[in-house]
Amino acid sequence: MTGNKIFITNGEHNLAENIIHPVLARIEGDPPGTTGISIFLVPKFLVNPDSTLGARNDIVCTGVEEKHGIHGSATCSMTLGAKGECLGYLLGEERKGMKIMFYMMNDARLNTGLQGLAYASAAYLEALNYSRERIQGRDLADFADRGAKSVPIIKHPDVRRNLLRMKAYVSGMRSFFYYAALCGEELGLGNKGEALNEAFFSLLTPIVKEYMAVMGYEVCNQAIQVFGGAGYTRDYPVEQYARDCRITPIYEGTSGIQAMDFLARKIGAEKGAAFAKLISEISQTTARAKEIKTLAPLAEKLDTAVSRLTDITQIIGKKALSPEFKTAFAHSLPFLHVTGDVIMAWMLLWRGVVSSEKLAKGCHPKDQSFYNGQIRTAEFFIQTELYATLGKMDAVAQGCPAAIEMEDDAFGGL
Amino acid sequence: MTGNKIFITNGEHNLAENIIHPVLARIEGDPPGTTGISIFLVPKFLVNPDSTLGARNDIVCTGVEEKHGIHGSATCSMTLGAKGECLGYLLGEERKGMKIMFYMMNDARLNTGLQGLAYASAAYLEALNYSRERIQGRDLADFADRGAKSVPIIKHPDVRRNLLRMKAYVSGMRSFFYYAALCGEELGLGNKGEALNEAFFSLLTPIVKEYMAVMGYEVCNQAIQVFGGAGYTRDYPVEQYARDCRITPIYEGTSGIQAMDFLARKIGAEKGAAFAKLISEISQTTARAKEIKTLAPLAEKLDTAVSRLTDITQIIGKKALSPEFKTAFAHSLPFLHVTGDVIMAWMLLWRGVVSSEKLAKGCHPKDQSFYNGQIRTAEFFIQTELYATLGKMDAVAQGCPAAIEMEDDAFGGL
Repeated sequence: MTGNKIFITNGEHNLAENIIHPVLARIEGDPPGTTGISIFLVPKFLVNPDSTLGARNDIVCTGVEEKHGIHGSATCSMTLGAKGECLGYLLGEERKGMKIMFYMMNDARLNTGLQGLAYASAAYLEALNYSRERIQGRDLADFADRGAKSVPIIKHPDVRRNLLRMKAYVSGMRSFFYYAALCGEELGLGNKGEALNEAFFSLLTPIVKEYMAVMGYEVCNQAIQVFGGAGYTRDYPVEQYARDCRITPIYEGTSGIQAMDFLARKIGAEKGAAFAKLISEISQTTARAKEIKTLAPLAEKLDTAVSRLTDITQIIGKKALSPEFKTAFAHSLPFLHVTGDVIMAWMLLWRGVVSSEKLAKGCHPKDQSFYNGQIRTAEFFIQTELYATLGKMDAVAQGCPAAIEMEDDAFGGL
Repeated sequence: MTGNKIFITNGEHNLAENIIHPVLARIEGDPPGTTGISIFLVPKFLVNPDSTLGARNDIVCTGVEEKHGIHGSATCSMTLGAKGECLGYLLGEERKGMKIMFYMMNDARLNTGLQGLAYASAAYLEALNYSRERIQGRDLADFADRGAKSVPIIKHPDVRRNLLRMKAYVSGMRSFFYYAALCGEELGLGNKGEALNEAFFSLLTPIVKEYMAVMGYEVCNQAIQVFGGAGYTRDYPVEQYARDCRITPIYEGTSGIQAMDFLARKIGAEKGAAFAKLISEISQTTARAKEIKTLAPLAEKLDTAVSRLTDITQIIGKKALSPEFKTAFAHSLPFLHVTGDVIMAWMLLWRGVVSSEKLAKGCHPKDQSFYNGQIRTAEFFIQTELYATLGKMDAVAQGCPAAIEMEDDAFGGL
């Protein structure tokens, strides 16, 4: 095998006795483009018939990137066959490389979403802890009393808003990831034949990947803000979490790629039945919530958002197949994001329903605060964040073509 | 003088022959709290009567922070009077330290906003340049043609949306900063006596500081996204711009401080006349825009947003003086941000008006693309971003109290 590839995560290291690179490559004479691509396993050390390690294969690291974050992972430039002696072993059939690669890629995309959540969760808990320990400023109720003592910053309204917003996204993403993972597990347990379930899981994949990457990063960024100047230093881990998390909307397919996949391939899958299943699943939760007095107004609002999401999906879906398809794709990322917002509202309301039921049954006193917190979080998200979502949906419906119609030359004139 | 202070920007360096520290301190016996504070000039080297430098003063750097960015600036811990020999010189009158400090602080806040714009502007132009040079992927029109050649990424709809959004914020912030600076200049040129003009300039200050910091950072962050994996490396300057810019919503008063200043002190200044002046200034532009056929629909939409902004200012302003004042302050930062959004729409529409007039008069052919681009940018912002703003205004009007009512203990339950 011969060739070069940059941006190889963990391309070279000494942490394991061998490294096996899956490599996309073309067999001599095969057609150009992705149809002609096969996949090969290229080991760092060749493996003897008795499974012991043999000679060094002709694949070498020629450079390591200096990066914004994820310094625990060496991002390598690799050169294969510089001496004409690189051996690779065909994986699966010839010219099926792209299909085989996408098994790994879909899994990697889900895990990238999980990575976003993991950084966000850690960053939130660090910020919460700091907000309880850091004493600064008087309580707003003592604004005029210059002699009043200073309080932990969790007492300040803007800090509370920021914390609750972070918590809402972390909790919502956590439930969403479990939900998506369960859908995937069920496929693996024998339902693989059901096309609708496969299409539904495929529909969730770009949302998990993109939404949890971008909102995970947003939570890390806000964690820095809770820490203030201290968050900007390396004395606390949050600035590192933000730098590390910044890779998640880039690798395994950027935001733009996920949005294109979502609009072009996923929302129309199974003649729209996969997307209809999402709407139907959400409606099951809102129906339950409407039975609970305190949650009914939240359920009504989520219903409105779900109904609007159905509308704009029709609008952007049709436009994607019309001569104005480029304008549709210019709105595909905000469209994916508002879908993610609605899913957050759904997951938080679901938590609210379960919590209300637990409280009604009479839970242990020490759990009351936890369950009340779930209801408050749903209330916050639906009564605050979801309004912006509705506005963003209006923008998708409006479908302004300016980004497409703008002359290329005009982008520079500030 | 004796004491310690951390986070002193450029607290110690060899770039100048002397360093003069303005230091807030209390004269022995003066009252506690901010009313008792005076301000002193503390030089690194004492100055002889003939202006030559004398002995080293007893002020030393005891540590330098490891930071997320702005590595060109040493953030120092300073110790004054460790040997009991630190001399400071009173600046102005005794116990007027806070007032004197705020002259500097207000100026620093404006310049922090400018700093956000400067990073954003540089990051945008780097991203734009890269989008024209980087060839990757087929044109969406050739989606099905696997043999089609790859195009510069500026041709991809999602990249164009991202670029135009960045351009809209950079252009809008640029005009806003010039506008605010002009208001400040006019005060300095002899109108200092006019209380309304002073109040108006003071109203703009926290918006310049906070909005341009946060949106400047957002533009830097999106510049990384345009570069993709390359943007995550240190081969290009955008990841550094993002790290550097991240300080701007923190120093010289965090986002939360600006929002509190805006709601508590600024919108009600001169019995609301300063805020009314802002609305009236915007209306002058929308009135002009309504005379121009292509801009009239944009002017109508901005009018709607301005009217809604007036409403929510009444709502949140009243609530800030009611027993629910903590809930009002929990919405103060989104309230400042939507005000900034409306100002962006105003500035971009203003550019659109001027451009339309230039085009109507018949400008040089080489300028047409620039002027058309201004109109397209206004169209994009008002027909896309401003919808989300309206949604966020609804959230401020709704004024959900969850962040205030949430039990402190419940924040931890994810």
